[in-house]
This record gives sequence, structure tokens and C-alpha cells, in this order.
Amino acid sequence: MTGTALRIALAHHEAWFAKDLDLAMTYVADDIVCDAPAGRLEGAAAYRAFLAPFVQILLGTRMIGAFGDDETALIMYDTETVPVPHAPGAEHLTIAHGKITRNVFLFDRAPFDAARRSAT
Amino acid sequence: MTGTALRIALAHHEAWFAKDLDLAMTYVADDIVCDAPAGRLEGAAAYRAFLAPFVQILLGTRMIGAFGDDETALIMYDTETVPVPHAPGAEHLTIAHGKITRNVFLFDRAPFDAARRSAT
Repeated sequence: MTGTALRIALAHHEAWFAKDLDLAMTYVADDIVCDAPAGRLEGAAAYRAFLAPFVQILLGTRMIGAFGDDETALIMYDTETVPVPHAPGAEHLTIAHGKITRNVFLFDRAPFDAARRSAT
Repeated sequence: MTGTALRIALAHHEAWFAKDLDLAMTYVADDIVCDAPAGRLEGAAAYRAFLAPFVQILLGTRMIGAFGDDETALIMYDTETVPVPHAPGAEHLTIAHGKITRNVFLFDRAPFDAARRSAT
């Protein structure tokens, strides 16, 4: 459970799980590239815009697993959100010079799509 | 990248990525409990029935990250499938006595749902 990359990844997640996006973004490189379920996000502004709606609906989080070395970290967590009671996520993060430069961000969009359809 | 659990997890995945479900299932406990996107699966037969359709549509795989210790492993991979060209998955596996006893299995169902809808 040690490694520089894991420490940065966990600090980032502790901040955004606490809904402190300003703090969370201090761990994100300006030129981050994130492969999210809906497609590739490029740059810190796009990444923040991706996280922001999720933070709005977040009710709780639980870390399932977290590993890493000096360059990469892999974490899985469960989240409780307003529309979806169990919405797990997994992220594979690459860290350089103390900032997250790459993220492969995985979650299941299906229950969010279903909640959106039933709300309309 | 070491640890008993990771070795078992990687051997399991090497087998099912090679479409050898018989070999893959030798690493799975009879009483496995798997939390998959559509719900909980209990027992090796249910787990095999969950993997089997996926193996049928599998065209290629690429490991993104794999970590573990003596009891748990966390892996993320990308898959190429017939309906969905990039379908990443992540699994958090718990291993006891050389067998996978728990798995939190995450992938995005949305593109599979979309492919199914467009096929009908």
C-alpha cells in the first residue's frame, strides 16, 4: 500500500470524496489525459468539469482496494450517490512530478442512464 | 507485482483471456461470491455462466494494471469485443487457499446495451 503514486492518488481521492474539488485539483496535472467511459478528456478544466457533477450527487464512499508503486496507482471504490445507491468506480492513475498525468477511469454508466430515463 | 493473490488472479485471467474457461475455473472457489454490474452472483456455476458469453465475443485483451498482496488482487484491463471495440474491466479479487472466493467485477454496461439496442 506504499509508493509515491498511491499517496498522490489517495490524497486526490480523499479531497474529492470530501467534495473539496479545489484541493483535489492540486494533484492533477494541467495536461492530464483521462479515458473516461464516455470518451477522452484532455486538460485539467475538462477533468474538473467531469468530476464536478459527480461530487454534487455524492452521498458516501468506501475504498475497496488501493495499490500502487512509484509511477502508477490502481484503486477501486464504491460510492453511494443520489440516483444510484451502489456505483463502484476504478481508476488507473499515472503520476509524474507529484501530479496525476493519466487516468483510466471506469464506472458503469447503465444505472445512471436508467435513473435519468426514469426521472424524465 | 508479486503476491500469491496476484499470481492466482493473473493465472485465472490468462486462461479466460485465452478462452479456456475450464482452466480459468480451476482458480475459482465453488462458493465464490461476485458482485457484478447487474447484481450478485453466487457459486462457481453462476460465475462461469457470467463469463461464458463474454468469452464468446472476446477479440483481444490488454492488461492496464495489476497489483496484489497475499490475499487480494486488483487488476484493470482493456478488452476488444465484437460489439464494443474498447470495453475496459476492473476486478478486485480475494483469494483463499489458492482460489478466488470474492470478486468485485466492474465494467461499463452502457456500450453493450447500446449495441444490443442498435442490433434489434
